[in-house]
Amino acid sequence: MYYAEPVARLIEEFAKLPGIGPKTAQRLAFHILNSDAESAHGLAKALINAKQKIRYCSICSNLTDTDPCKLCQDSTRDRNTICVVEQARDVVAIERTREYKGLYHVLHGAISPMDGIGPEQLKIKELLERLQKNSVQEIILATNPNIEGEATAMYLARLLKPMGVRVTRIAHGLPVGGDLEYADEVTLSKAFEGRREM
Amino acid sequence: MYYAEPVARLIEEFAKLPGIGPKTAQRLAFHILNSDAESAHGLAKALINAKQKIRYCSICSNLTDTDPCKLCQDSTRDRNTICVVEQARDVVAIERTREYKGLYHVLHGAISPMDGIGPEQLKIKELLERLQKNSVQEIILATNPNIEGEATAMYLARLLKPMGVRVTRIAHGLPVGGDLEYADEVTLSKAFEGRREM
Repeated sequence: MYYAEPVARLIEEFAKLPGIGPKTAQRLAFHILNSDAESAHGLAKALINAKQKIRYCSICSNLTDTDPCKLCQDSTRDRNTICVVEQARDVVAIERTREYKGLYHVLHGAISPMDGIGPEQLKIKELLERLQKNSVQEIILATNPNIEGEATAMYLARLLKPMGVRVTRIAHGLPVGGDLEYADEVTLSKAFEGRREM
Repeated sequence: MYYAEPVARLIEEFAKLPGIGPKTAQRLAFHILNSDAESAHGLAKALINAKQKIRYCSICSNLTDTDPCKLCQDSTRDRNTICVVEQARDVVAIERTREYKGLYHVLHGAISPMDGIGPEQLKIKELLERLQKNSVQEIILATNPNIEGEATAMYLARLLKPMGVRVTRIAHGLPVGGDLEYADEVTLSKAFEGRREM
């Protein structure tokens, strides 16, 4: 009512994005209207382009514009290790550490009965197929350290161990730079549980 | 490097928006990639559409898809009063009160020598032209209650008063629902200054 129709539409579309409330959507829309045409077209093109070109890698289910994805294609990576993560963004987070040199497998979610997500909705079938086709020595379960992630890790561990593959879980403990005083009890007890020889 | 190129481009474009940092940009991009093609196309279309159709109203400089804008066209509004605001979003804020029935004039900024914005950069010439062409009885200065807004209001008052038009400024005072204890000194002294008979 108060806005011209194209402005109202733009605000509405921005407000559909996660974490963008009506006030922020309005600010973004006015920013677009006040800046040059190029910035609006740049975002519009990037949206359409990403949506058209990005699909799931047929091997690891990561988001990619080539198939197989660059990580699966990379011959320098260790093909004996697969790191299982929930989301494509987790791959990026782990790659940033520059420590891990194996392959990935993206589940696209975690088991969550409350949200109606069971093992069938995740890329678990694809993971089993990979294990049958290739010789994999270790599966690192790097799902999130919350209820859904733990449940998924437990489920996968039970499924994969009988296949004769080594299954590991990333460590729980105190974050680096953290403060013992402010750590929650569960993290602190996990840190004790996972203590190592020095 | 870690992202496929179209994903990186989309994140970059999102990060150009105000208040959107790299983390939020990444979350928005992954949201787009994980949702249906329609949502990406909806936003892309709204961006291009708004940018193409929205221009400044030739009378009041408000953002509009018709010229003159709907407010300037509306014959039920009081043509003797013009409310001067900094931004198009301020028009929306005032319209929401449903109290004001006059016309608007959007300056598209406020005088700010620090940012190199002088009176010439604002739609002040257009306002003077309006006053010459039409019989206006009152100009309400509704620029923001900060340094730039006050300076702009002072400048406009000095410019407009000699033209024989009544020039008023919106009231400073305590916001409704506010707490006297937590009001800053300037607001509180302005509230005393502007006290009225009951």
